[in-house]
Amino acid sequence: MTIFFKYITQSKWFNNFIIGAIILASVLIGLQTDEYLLEHYGGLLNILNDIILWIFGIEIIIKMLAEGRKPWRYFYDPWNVFDFSIVAVSILDIILTASTSSFIPILRLFRLFRVFRVLKLVTALPELRLLVETLLKSVSSIVYVGLFLSLLFYIYGIMAVFIFGENDPVHFGTLPIAVLSFFRIVTLEDWTDIMYINMFGCDQYGYQGNEHLCTDPYAMPLESALFFTSFVLLGTMIILNLFVGVIMNSMDQVNEEKKLEEIAGKRKAEKITISDEIQLIHYRLETISEQLNLISHRVSDELISRPPDSL
Amino acid sequence: MTIFFKYITQSKWFNNFIIGAIILASVLIGLQTDEYLLEHYGGLLNILNDIILWIFGIEIIIKMLAEGRKPWRYFYDPWNVFDFSIVAVSILDIILTASTSSFIPILRLFRLFRVFRVLKLVTALPELRLLVETLLKSVSSIVYVGLFLSLLFYIYGIMAVFIFGENDPVHFGTLPIAVLSFFRIVTLEDWTDIMYINMFGCDQYGYQGNEHLCTDPYAMPLESALFFTSFVLLGTMIILNLFVGVIMNSMDQVNEEKKLEEIAGKRKAEKITISDEIQLIHYRLETISEQLNLISHRVSDELISRPPDSL
Amino acid sequence: MTIFFKYITQSKWFNNFIIGAIILASVLIGLQTDEYLLEHYGGLLNILNDIILWIFGIEIIIKMLAEGRKPWRYFYDPWNVFDFSIVAVSILDIILTASTSSFIPILRLFRLFRVFRVLKLVTALPELRLLVETLLKSVSSIVYVGLFLSLLFYIYGIMAVFIFGENDPVHFGTLPIAVLSFFRIVTLEDWTDIMYINMFGCDQYGYQGNEHLCTDPYAMPLESALFFTSFVLLGTMIILNLFVGVIMNSMDQVNEEKKLEEIAGKRKAEKITISDEIQLIHYRLETISEQLNLISHRVSDELISRPPDSL
Amino acid sequence: MTIFFKYITQSKWFNNFIIGAIILASVLIGLQTDEYLLEHYGGLLNILNDIILWIFGIEIIIKMLAEGRKPWRYFYDPWNVFDFSIVAVSILDIILTASTSSFIPILRLFRLFRVFRVLKLVTALPELRLLVETLLKSVSSIVYVGLFLSLLFYIYGIMAVFIFGENDPVHFGTLPIAVLSFFRIVTLEDWTDIMYINMFGCDQYGYQGNEHLCTDPYAMPLESALFFTSFVLLGTMIILNLFVGVIMNSMDQVNEEKKLEEIAGKRKAEKITISDEIQLIHYRLETISEQLNLISHRVSDELISRPPDSL
Repeated sequence: MTIFFKYITQSKWFNNFIIGAIILASVLIGLQTDEYLLEHYGGLLNILNDIILWIFGIEIIIKMLAEGRKPWRYFYDPWNVFDFSIVAVSILDIILTASTSSFIPILRLFRLFRVFRVLKLVTALPELRLLVETLLKSVSSIVYVGLFLSLLFYIYGIMAVFIFGENDPVHFGTLPIAVLSFFRIVTLEDWTDIMYINMFGCDQYGYQGNEHLCTDPYAMPLESALFFTSFVLLGTMIILNLFVGVIMNSMDQVNEEKKLEEIAGKRKAEKITISDEIQLIHYRLETISEQLNLISHRVSDELISRPPDSL
Repeated sequence: MTIFFKYITQSKWFNNFIIGAIILASVLIGLQTDEYLLEHYGGLLNILNDIILWIFGIEIIIKMLAEGRKPWRYFYDPWNVFDFSIVAVSILDIILTASTSSFIPILRLFRLFRVFRVLKLVTALPELRLLVETLLKSVSSIVYVGLFLSLLFYIYGIMAVFIFGENDPVHFGTLPIAVLSFFRIVTLEDWTDIMYINMFGCDQYGYQGNEHLCTDPYAMPLESALFFTSFVLLGTMIILNLFVGVIMNSMDQVNEEKKLEEIAGKRKAEKITISDEIQLIHYRLETISEQLNLISHRVSDELISRPPDSL
Repeated sequence: MTIFFKYITQSKWFNNFIIGAIILASVLIGLQTDEYLLEHYGGLLNILNDIILWIFGIEIIIKMLAEGRKPWRYFYDPWNVFDFSIVAVSILDIILTASTSSFIPILRLFRLFRVFRVLKLVTALPELRLLVETLLKSVSSIVYVGLFLSLLFYIYGIMAVFIFGENDPVHFGTLPIAVLSFFRIVTLEDWTDIMYINMFGCDQYGYQGNEHLCTDPYAMPLESALFFTSFVLLGTMIILNLFVGVIMNSMDQVNEEKKLEEIAGKRKAEKITISDEIQLIHYRLETISEQLNLISHRVSDELISRPPDSL
Repeated sequence: MTIFFKYITQSKWFNNFIIGAIILASVLIGLQTDEYLLEHYGGLLNILNDIILWIFGIEIIIKMLAEGRKPWRYFYDPWNVFDFSIVAVSILDIILTASTSSFIPILRLFRLFRVFRVLKLVTALPELRLLVETLLKSVSSIVYVGLFLSLLFYIYGIMAVFIFGENDPVHFGTLPIAVLSFFRIVTLEDWTDIMYINMFGCDQYGYQGNEHLCTDPYAMPLESALFFTSFVLLGTMIILNLFVGVIMNSMDQVNEEKKLEEIAGKRKAEKITISDEIQLIHYRLETISEQLNLISHRVSDELISRPPDSL
C-alpha cells in the first residue's frame, strides 16, 4: 500500500491535477472579490470551494499514507506544514461558521486567510520553491541590515519629533508617524515635500486644505535641508547597497550549488562530456584559489601574532 | 547564381543600403505623426513608404535566392521570420485597403504595425541582435520570478479589495484595478498617497474633486500602514534583487561566450591546436608548483626567524 | 584583579545585561517624545535615565580596569571612544543643568545627543559592528565619487542659476538652492515639475498659489528639456553605477575576509600547518594534471573518430 | 632647461599650487552667481579671474616647455587638450569683449563656458581621472544599449501619438514631446498620472486648470493600462539591468588592471611579500581558468562544425 501511495505522490498526473486544483482555487478567490458574482453565483462558488478543500485534504492524507507507518514524517518538510495549516484553517472556519454565526469579524479574517491557498502554487512548483528558499536564505543575512536600518529610522525619528514635531505634526507629530515618514523618505517618495514644509514652515508650503493642523509654523531652511539630505544619503546608501550585496551573495551560492548538483547527477548517469570534465577542473581551481586565500590569511595572521622580540 | 546572391547578402554595401532604408523608413513613420506634414506631403510620404516596402521585399527575395535550391532555409533564422512578417503585414494592409475602405479600425491597427519597421534595425545591426538575444535569454529565467511576483500582486490585490475596497474604490474597487495599484506601488510611484487615503479615510485625504466617489469613508491607520509598508518591503526586495541577480547572471554568460569566441577565432588562425593549449596549461601548473615550493620555504623561514614569545 | 575584570567583560551575562540596558535606554528616549508621558511620568523617566547612565559609566570603568596597569589602552579601540563620549556628553549635560538653567538652546542640543545612546547597540553587537566597518571602509573609496558628483552638482547649479534663475527663483534663485534642487533631481523626485516650469515658464506651470514669486516668466522648451534630461542621465548613471560598484567591491572583500578568518580558526584548532596546506594544493594540482591528460586524450579521440567533411 | 621644466611639472608644490588655483577659480565662479557680490565687488572678482587665467596659461606654457623641442607633444594627452581649450575659450572671450560689446548673447555663452574651469580639478587629481576614464570606457559599451532604448522610446512614442495624442496633447501631442514623456516614464516619475489621464480621459483626470487643452477627451482604460505597464516593465528592465551589467563589467576590468599594476610595481622594487606571491598565483590560476573555458568552447565548436558522416 505504501508503495502505491508513494507512486501516486510522485506521478506527474497527480501533481498536475493538484496544480490544476490550486489554479482553480486561486481563480475562485479572485472571482469572490466581485460583488455581482458573489450575489448571483455565491452558492456555486461555495460548493466549488468545498470541493477544492476536499481535494487538498485528500492530498494531505495520500502524502501521509505514502510515508508508511510513520505518517508524522509528513511534517518534517516545512512546505507540508504550510500546506496542512492552509487546510486546517479552512476546516476551523467551517466548524466555527456552523457552531456560531455571530462572530463575524473573526470569520472575515478566516475568509482572508483563504487567500494563502494561492501560495500553495509555490509548494507545487519546484522552481518557485527554489526562489522562496533563496529569498529566505538571504533573509537571515538581512536581519542585521534590517536592524541597523531600524536604528537609523528610530534615531532620525526621535530627532525629527524634537526638531520638526511642532512645525509639521502630520509627518512628525509622534514617534510612530515619524518612523513611517522616514520609511517613506527612504523610498524617495515625495521626500522633498517633507523637506520643503520644514524649510519654509507649514504656513507657506504643503498644508493647503489642512491649515487647522498648522498651529505652530516655524521655518528652518538650513536645518531641514541638512537633516533630510543627510538622511537620504545615509538611508539610500545603506538600503540599496547592503541589501543588494547581501542578496547577491546568497544568489551566487545557490547558483553554484545547483550547477554542481547537475554535474554530480550526470556523473552518476556516466554521461560526462568534455565540457563537464573541464567544469570540474574549474571547481578544483576555485578550491585551490580559496586555499591560497586561506594560506595568505594565515601567513599574515601568524606573522603578526608573533611579534619580533625587540618590541 | 546562388553564389552571386550569397555574395550580395554578405557584402558591406548591401547591408549599409538596407540600414539606410530602415533609417529612412523610421524617419518617415516619425514624420507621419505630424498632422501638418501628413496633410501637405501625404502623397509623397506614401510613395516613399511604397518604395521602402519594395526594397524590403527585394531584400527578402535576394536572401531566399542566396539559399540556393532550399529557399525555405531562409525561415530557419528567427530574425528572418521577423523581417518577413513585417513586409507581409504591410502587403496585407495594401490589399485590404484596395478591396475595402470601410474597415477603418483594423486599418489603423495595421498602420500602427508599420512602427515595427523600426525594429528591423535590430535585425540589421549584429550588436543590437546580441543585446536582444541576451534579454530574451534572461527572460526564460525571469519567468518564475515574474510568476512569483504575480502571485504576490494577486494575493495582496484580493486582500486589499476586501479590506480597503469600500474606503478607496478608485484604487481597490475591483481586483484588476487593485492589481494595477500594486504594480504602481511596487514602482514606488506616489505609494504613500494610497497609504494615506486608507490611513485617514477617503473623506480626509486624496479624494478632493472626487468627493462623490468617497461613499464609505473609513480610517484604518494601523492596518493601512502595516499592509502597504510590508508590501513595499516584500515587493521591492523581490523585484530589485531577484530580477537584477537573474539578469546579471545571464549577462555574464553572454559576455564570456562572446570573449571566448573571439579568442578561439584568433587561436585557430594561429593554428594552435587544443592539445597545444592543454600542454600550455601543464606548463603553467608546473610554474605554480614551483612558486608554491618557494612560498613554503619562505613561510617556514620567516616563522623560524621570529620565535614565539612567552605569550 | 585584572583577570577578574577581564572575565567579567568577556562573560555572556555581562554583555547581555549591557545590551538590555541599551535597549531600555533606547525605549526611554522613544517614550520621551510623547508629551503626555513626559508630563505625567517625567520624574520616573529621568530617574531611569540616570540609572542607565550609571550602568554605562560602570561598564567603562570595568573595561578600563580589565586593561590592568594600562587603562588608557581602553581608548585604543575606536568603539570604546564612541561609548566613552556618549557618557561624557551626558555628564556634561548634568553639570551644565546644575550650574545654570538659562542656557536652554544648548541644553536641548545635549538632550538630542542622548539619542546616540541607541547607537551603543552597534558597539554591543559584533554583527552590526561588522556592518558599520564595511560601510566605513567603502566610504574611503566613495570619497572621490562623492567629490565628482559634487563637481557635477556645482557646475550644473551655476549654469542653472544663470539660465533658469530668473524664471524659476524657487528652485534656482541662488547657488545653494540650485545645488539642493539638483540633489533632488538626482533622486528623481518630481524632477519633471522643475523641467516643466522652465519649459513652459513659471506663469504657465507650477507657481499656482505663489504667483507673486513668478516675476520674470520665460519659456525655454528646448533648453530646459535638454538641460534636465542630460543631467538626469549623467547624474543617475554616476550615482547608481559607480556607487554600487565601489561599495560592492569592498563588501566582497569584507565577506571573504570573514570567511577566511573562520576557516583559519578551524584549521589551527585541527593543528594543520601552512606547509600541510601547501602540500594539499600540490596534490590537487597533480589531480588536475591527470584530468587534463584525460581530456587531451578524449579530444584527439573524438576529433579523429569524426573526420572533417568535404566543406 | 627642459629638465628644469620637467622637474617643475612633476614637483608636488607645483601641482598643489595649480589645484589651489582651480579651487579658487571654482569658488569665484560660484560667487559670481550672487548678484549682490557681483554689483559691489565685480571689479575685484574680474581681477582675480584674470590672475587665475594667467596662472592657467603659464601652466600650459611650462608643460609645453617640459616637452623640450617637441612642444606639440603636449597635445598628445587628451586631458591637456581639455585644459588648453578652457584657456583658449577664455582668451577668445576677452578678445571679443574688447573688440565689440554688442554681441551680448554669445558673450553670455562664453561666460557659461567658464564653468568648465571647475572640471580642471578632474585633470589635476589622478583619482578623478581614473573615475572619468572608467565612465568613458563604459560609455563605448553603452552606445548600443542607448541606441536600443532610443528605438524603444521612438516606437512607443509614435504609437502613443497615434493612440493617445488626441486625448492627452500635453504629453503626446507631437513626437518629441511623446519621447520626452517616455523618458519621464522610464524614470518612474509620476508615470501613473499619465496612465490615469488616458485611462479616465482628460476631462476626468489631470487637466485641472488646463481644461482648454482637453479638446478631445476619450477614456481608454484597458489600452492605457496595458500600454504603460508594458512600457514600464520593458523600459526599466532594459535600463536598469543592461546599464548596471555593462558598467560593472568595465569596473571589474579597471580594478583588476590596477591591482596587477601594483604588484608589478612592487616586483620592480623587489619588495614582494608572501601575500603578493600568492596573489600572483591567483592570477595564474585565473589565466588557467580562462584557458579552460577556451578549450571547452573550442571543443564544442569544432565537434559541432565537423558533423558525423551519417548526416
